[in-house]
Amino acid sequence: MKNNTIILKSRPVRMPDFSNFEFIEEPMPQHGIGEVLLKTVYVSVDPYLRGKMSGTKAPRFELNKPIASRIIAEVIKSDNKKFLEGDFVSGYLEWKEYQVSNGTEIQKVSAETAPLSAYLGVLGITGLSAYFALSDIGKPKLGETLVVSAAAGAVGSIAGQIGKIMGCRVIGIVGTDEKAELIKTKFGFDAAINYKTRPDIKTAVEEICPGGVDIYFDNVGGVISDGVIANINKYGRIPVCGSISNYNDIEEQTSPSLLPVVVYKFLSIQGFLISDLAERFPEGISQLAFWLKEGKLRYSETIVEGFDKLPGAFIGLLQGKNIGKMIVKI
Amino acid sequence: MKNNTIILKSRPVRMPDFSNFEFIEEPMPQHGIGEVLLKTVYVSVDPYLRGKMSGTKAPRFELNKPIASRIIAEVIKSDNKKFLEGDFVSGYLEWKEYQVSNGTEIQKVSAETAPLSAYLGVLGITGLSAYFALSDIGKPKLGETLVVSAAAGAVGSIAGQIGKIMGCRVIGIVGTDEKAELIKTKFGFDAAINYKTRPDIKTAVEEICPGGVDIYFDNVGGVISDGVIANINKYGRIPVCGSISNYNDIEEQTSPSLLPVVVYKFLSIQGFLISDLAERFPEGISQLAFWLKEGKLRYSETIVEGFDKLPGAFIGLLQGKNIGKMIVKI
Repeated sequence: MKNNTIILKSRPVRMPDFSNFEFIEEPMPQHGIGEVLLKTVYVSVDPYLRGKMSGTKAPRFELNKPIASRIIAEVIKSDNKKFLEGDFVSGYLEWKEYQVSNGTEIQKVSAETAPLSAYLGVLGITGLSAYFALSDIGKPKLGETLVVSAAAGAVGSIAGQIGKIMGCRVIGIVGTDEKAELIKTKFGFDAAINYKTRPDIKTAVEEICPGGVDIYFDNVGGVISDGVIANINKYGRIPVCGSISNYNDIEEQTSPSLLPVVVYKFLSIQGFLISDLAERFPEGISQLAFWLKEGKLRYSETIVEGFDKLPGAFIGLLQGKNIGKMIVKI
Repeated sequence: MKNNTIILKSRPVRMPDFSNFEFIEEPMPQHGIGEVLLKTVYVSVDPYLRGKMSGTKAPRFELNKPIASRIIAEVIKSDNKKFLEGDFVSGYLEWKEYQVSNGTEIQKVSAETAPLSAYLGVLGITGLSAYFALSDIGKPKLGETLVVSAAAGAVGSIAGQIGKIMGCRVIGIVGTDEKAELIKTKFGFDAAINYKTRPDIKTAVEEICPGGVDIYFDNVGGVISDGVIANINKYGRIPVCGSISNYNDIEEQTSPSLLPVVVYKFLSIQGFLISDLAERFPEGISQLAFWLKEGKLRYSETIVEGFDKLPGAFIGLLQGKNIGKMIVKI
């Protein structure tokens, strides 16, 4: 029996393509003393992997070594007292069908509390990113206006719903009419802007938000963000969660100068590294799981099936082919 | 006896000139019940007044009404128990030789604690701006690298010295060799960059800060800031205190896009309105006065004499003719 594995064959320069990935077969791994043998069940594909592939984001993936991301796996053999056969775990693991772990970097997840794939989304890094960025940096207050870019995405759709729970008016920016409909009907956004049919974002936001924007939850950067920020109110907060429009850029982009706006409008603009907040993950997961059970938090997943579909799912994600969290089921 | 007053005759579009100001004579004011009659002693001229003149900064000055700014005045007649004749007070007052106050918007200042003009500088809004922006947003830590723009200016020179007190390596950006020398000898900066002789700020900062920049205390915006931010480290903090390079712009400037850098480097960029921190002014003044007495905080003033010199002093400030706090002595 062979173990299918995906390695990084070459570094993508702009948009990744299939030639950057290679499938290899390795011998089936054996677990040793204190170790567990894991069978991959769900693999998370995320925009940040792009930087680790191209080498701009540390720690970068090494050439000819397996790619890694957040994975839900089943414990199929265990020599570790903390884990029983049949347990499910979450961890930052390699793109392999089977792998061994000593148990220090994996956490048990409960299939009763939520569907397993939720631990890669609303109860995982994406949900936690939305929760901490909006709570800590966005500081939403009743009656304020929140604009979310990439609003149908995994992070954006949760951020928008948390905004609604907090009593904000929430507007989402998306790239298709289907996504515009989805965020209004499924996620309860008050309004949506399709930037493909309304490319003048500044005017579109101005019309929908005549009182201006108090919080801009940014997932994209680029001209969309420039257009929203042109409508930002005094004391505006901008949690910056992603810059998907720039992941494939190799040349520097320009924008209207932001620092004068920061001065005149007393803005707060912040990025963050979610892993720095690891100590507060239990707080975030409890809060999100509570809202989930109350039915106040819904989520979308695009689940692609098959280990061989992993590279294509990742490329599709960067092309906006997903709705909500993009996950590969093995 | 007449009371000289300066009113806003027209709104400046780019750089203000003398035609924007008019000197008028008003009747000598009379203080009523509970009021004091004040004689202006020192007038603060500041870059933010530019926006209130052009109308971009609220509350703006009204046409044909007196201009106002921070002023130190002497109480020459008093019908208010809180103030005795001979007391000195600080307040946001009008550009008049004499004026009346009901006492609610003025604070007593002590000529024994510090020279009176210090209350317009190191113990006034400029010192407090430097203190709160650096402490709250910059969060300086021992061994970190701090870059300050407009470093010989009122706010910048104090920010740099607080950075040194906190154990940072401090580099200042200035516009003349005289100022470069001043910040190193008088204010204890570790190094200086004259942007007029070294216009490639990015390379200049790279050479002087091979380990990158942890805190950028920004007073200027524009290409100087773009060059510093190109060297910002992960987890960098950027307190934005001013944007003097943009005060006279009427067209929008562009810069390298900042949001992707915020994401990749987990930056924090913040502006603030100093008057929002009024409750904490006593904390700031005590701290600054302590350092002043310890000899750890020095300051420069450019004092121009004569009420008729006020417009010229303000225009000179925007042209960079001051060293340190620009003050007009009446």
